[in-house]
Amino acid sequence: MDLKPEQIEEQRIEEQQKEQQPQEKQLIIKNPKGTRDFLPQQVLIRKQAIKIITDIFEQHGAVEIDTPVFELREILMGKYGEVGGKLIYDLQDQGGEILSLRYDLTVPFARYIATHGYKRLKRYHVGKVYRRENPSISYGRFREFFQCDFDFAGENDPMVADAELIRMVDQIFTKLDLGPFHIKVSHRKLLDAMINIAGIPKTQFKTVCSSIDKLNRQSWKEVKQELIEQKGVTEEQAEKLSQLVQLKGEPYQMIQQLKEQKLFEQQGQEALDEMELLFNLLKQMNGLKNVIFDLSLARGADYYTGLIQETELLGRQVGPISGGGRYDNLVGTFQKNSIPCVGAAIGIDRIFPIIEEKFKNSGKVFRENQSDFIVATIPSHNIDMTAEKFKIYDLLWSNGIKADVCYRLHWNLGKQLSYANEQQIPYAIIIGEDEVKQEIVQLKDLISKKEEIVNLKDLIKVIKQKVEN
Amino acid sequence: MDLKPEQIEEQRIEEQQKEQQPQEKQLIIKNPKGTRDFLPQQVLIRKQAIKIITDIFEQHGAVEIDTPVFELREILMGKYGEVGGKLIYDLQDQGGEILSLRYDLTVPFARYIATHGYKRLKRYHVGKVYRRENPSISYGRFREFFQCDFDFAGENDPMVADAELIRMVDQIFTKLDLGPFHIKVSHRKLLDAMINIAGIPKTQFKTVCSSIDKLNRQSWKEVKQELIEQKGVTEEQAEKLSQLVQLKGEPYQMIQQLKEQKLFEQQGQEALDEMELLFNLLKQMNGLKNVIFDLSLARGADYYTGLIQETELLGRQVGPISGGGRYDNLVGTFQKNSIPCVGAAIGIDRIFPIIEEKFKNSGKVFRENQSDFIVATIPSHNIDMTAEKFKIYDLLWSNGIKADVCYRLHWNLGKQLSYANEQQIPYAIIIGEDEVKQEIVQLKDLISKKEEIVNLKDLIKVIKQKVEN
Repeated sequence: MDLKPEQIEEQRIEEQQKEQQPQEKQLIIKNPKGTRDFLPQQVLIRKQAIKIITDIFEQHGAVEIDTPVFELREILMGKYGEVGGKLIYDLQDQGGEILSLRYDLTVPFARYIATHGYKRLKRYHVGKVYRRENPSISYGRFREFFQCDFDFAGENDPMVADAELIRMVDQIFTKLDLGPFHIKVSHRKLLDAMINIAGIPKTQFKTVCSSIDKLNRQSWKEVKQELIEQKGVTEEQAEKLSQLVQLKGEPYQMIQQLKEQKLFEQQGQEALDEMELLFNLLKQMNGLKNVIFDLSLARGADYYTGLIQETELLGRQVGPISGGGRYDNLVGTFQKNSIPCVGAAIGIDRIFPIIEEKFKNSGKVFRENQSDFIVATIPSHNIDMTAEKFKIYDLLWSNGIKADVCYRLHWNLGKQLSYANEQQIPYAIIIGEDEVKQEIVQLKDLISKKEEIVNLKDLIKVIKQKVEN
Repeated sequence: MDLKPEQIEEQRIEEQQKEQQPQEKQLIIKNPKGTRDFLPQQVLIRKQAIKIITDIFEQHGAVEIDTPVFELREILMGKYGEVGGKLIYDLQDQGGEILSLRYDLTVPFARYIATHGYKRLKRYHVGKVYRRENPSISYGRFREFFQCDFDFAGENDPMVADAELIRMVDQIFTKLDLGPFHIKVSHRKLLDAMINIAGIPKTQFKTVCSSIDKLNRQSWKEVKQELIEQKGVTEEQAEKLSQLVQLKGEPYQMIQQLKEQKLFEQQGQEALDEMELLFNLLKQMNGLKNVIFDLSLARGADYYTGLIQETELLGRQVGPISGGGRYDNLVGTFQKNSIPCVGAAIGIDRIFPIIEEKFKNSGKVFRENQSDFIVATIPSHNIDMTAEKFKIYDLLWSNGIKADVCYRLHWNLGKQLSYANEQQIPYAIIIGEDEVKQEIVQLKDLISKKEEIVNLKDLIKVIKQKVEN
């Protein structure tokens, strides 16, 4: 049976957690549920993926900011819909301010804009966010996970910044090369119109919206059941809604179909026009090829006001790998005059197993010890070889050379070289009495086993050439 | 009156927080007390400083890891002394595991070693840690702050890894070029010996140690008062302790003095020998020049077992800018057999105002918009200039060129160029009807005001040259 990388990861973690239960102690020495330790190779891979993403953000003129991992609880209240609101991690009241861990990087961004009085900012932010979700490794749902957010705050003509955003998302997932993907787009006001057309009262909009948002992980049948049993929606209303929210397709075909069927003539027409404008702009900037117009798209958070988007990887059972949209009124909850905003979050953790699998298949080797050199000594009765050894380390380190120390000073040469081999260190600089007297070293390539004699005064020049090759 | 950069920062933040109090709302839109938002220029400066530090960690063969921002509360309990233990941020019990925010990166490292079964690891970790301290901006004391930690776990000969660590700390602060500094070193077992020599009972060691640790921010008089009034130490014991803990100086002079006075002959002799060995190794690797042997050094955490170290900047009233030492038994609190460890944390936040001041004095300009190009259009009645504009953006972005969009599509050329000037974007690519027909662009340097005509097919080549210069 072929397992998907996320399933392999799930098995690995489950097994690891089983092993972690020592018999003699009650406390299980593990990371908290729904979180992960990142091993050195994983940190490296994650950094490379983040660099691809942030390079593209910077291409669009964005600058990086940082905010605290917790916010005043009141700042976060009432922003994330009925589901999201329950998933916020609260800090215990230990006196002083009442705090919660951030749930996303969007509300902290809006708070930041208000706190510092920005009128316009194109920023990106890479950081961990926290949700008390039921964790699912295969779905890529964690309680602590990374987001890479790009947002633009400021005045703009309709759909211009929105189109740039979608093109950027397209460029990121094309560059990350994870396989085929769809960028699903819709408009929050179309959703409102659909709920209204179905005859559901306005007071139910938010709660119905929360149910529809579950369509990215549940079937329509399940969502319909929830709407009828928990949200007071009638069978007839649900049927009407069902016909609407299940419409999706190639952007221009959808526009044509919706126009022909005159679905949004009475309401939502303006939003539909905006979507058509978006597609025109995207076509002009060559960003339309992976876009799908999907009327089932809802997004859980309360703050969206216009475009909404999510990216899904085709043929993978992971959740959305990007999400976002336009939220023109959120800054206005923090200050008198709002500032329109549009943005997207890229979910690094959901794509991480795929990137990791690609790295492994690439045949690239990751060394847990990144040193290129070790200094090994031949014991002597006449000379303090420890002093001579560290003289060379000083030379190496002062010149920025990566060099690891074998912390056993009295090991013989063979043992020192075995240590270097174990650590996958490619070169050894070997010195004994003769080398010290003649001011030379033996430079040994531990893979090819070739040795050469190098004058101490040329050492840095010679090894810098080796490292560069 | 000349203000120190940290005082200027304090004033700035105070004023900012005053301004942040809107009259009409009760909720103050601000970041939590003791935390900071980092503005784009600050993130850039911080990243540069972190790169200097982590490059040096990598030079010594270290690899990066990452752990969650919270840990099971039990993992952190009983590790940080009587003062530290009270400063841990607890998460509210919302069902499930009982969690706390990490207080440092050291205990999570020891937990990581145990969880993953490492026998040997040289790792670094850059992350935020959390302490419910009374914040003081001028002292550089925050509730959320960055640490850059380097630690080595594994067997080693006495003081070899310890010496490498001190040399690394020396190299880091030399490279950061913040002005003169002292690396204060001592040995936890010397502290135990001194408390014992003063006649204080063994049961009081930890609590007396906590008081002595305050010497880096309080006078001996204050600490003595605490010892007598709160810790049950007699006047005579305090007097005896006072004579010992106030000894400090150049390493070899101290060794000589302590030997002559035979202070540690009965106990602590082994620790003193280890200190002498440390100095010998450091001398050999050229890392002794900024080291001070300081018997007042205590370190608050309970887990230290050997070398302890702190770095102080001379002439600045900020707290220690590095701290750490040897903790051979900490991993042993999580598994049957301990693994000896030694490490140091570099406190980026304490040195940040100084690095920021240096950046400002360097005359370097930081642009909040990092774009190099904007595409500006001359309006036309015959051609869809928006389409032509985004065709060029597609070309730029597909080739990794940093280009910002003016989100107003109907502004005239002058307004578009004003926008570019405001954003400090150095170049504009200008197109009108004629340019589109002839497949050329005007490339304008917005600083020198020079213009040139470039063929569209040569555009990427020409502007890549400009960016590289």
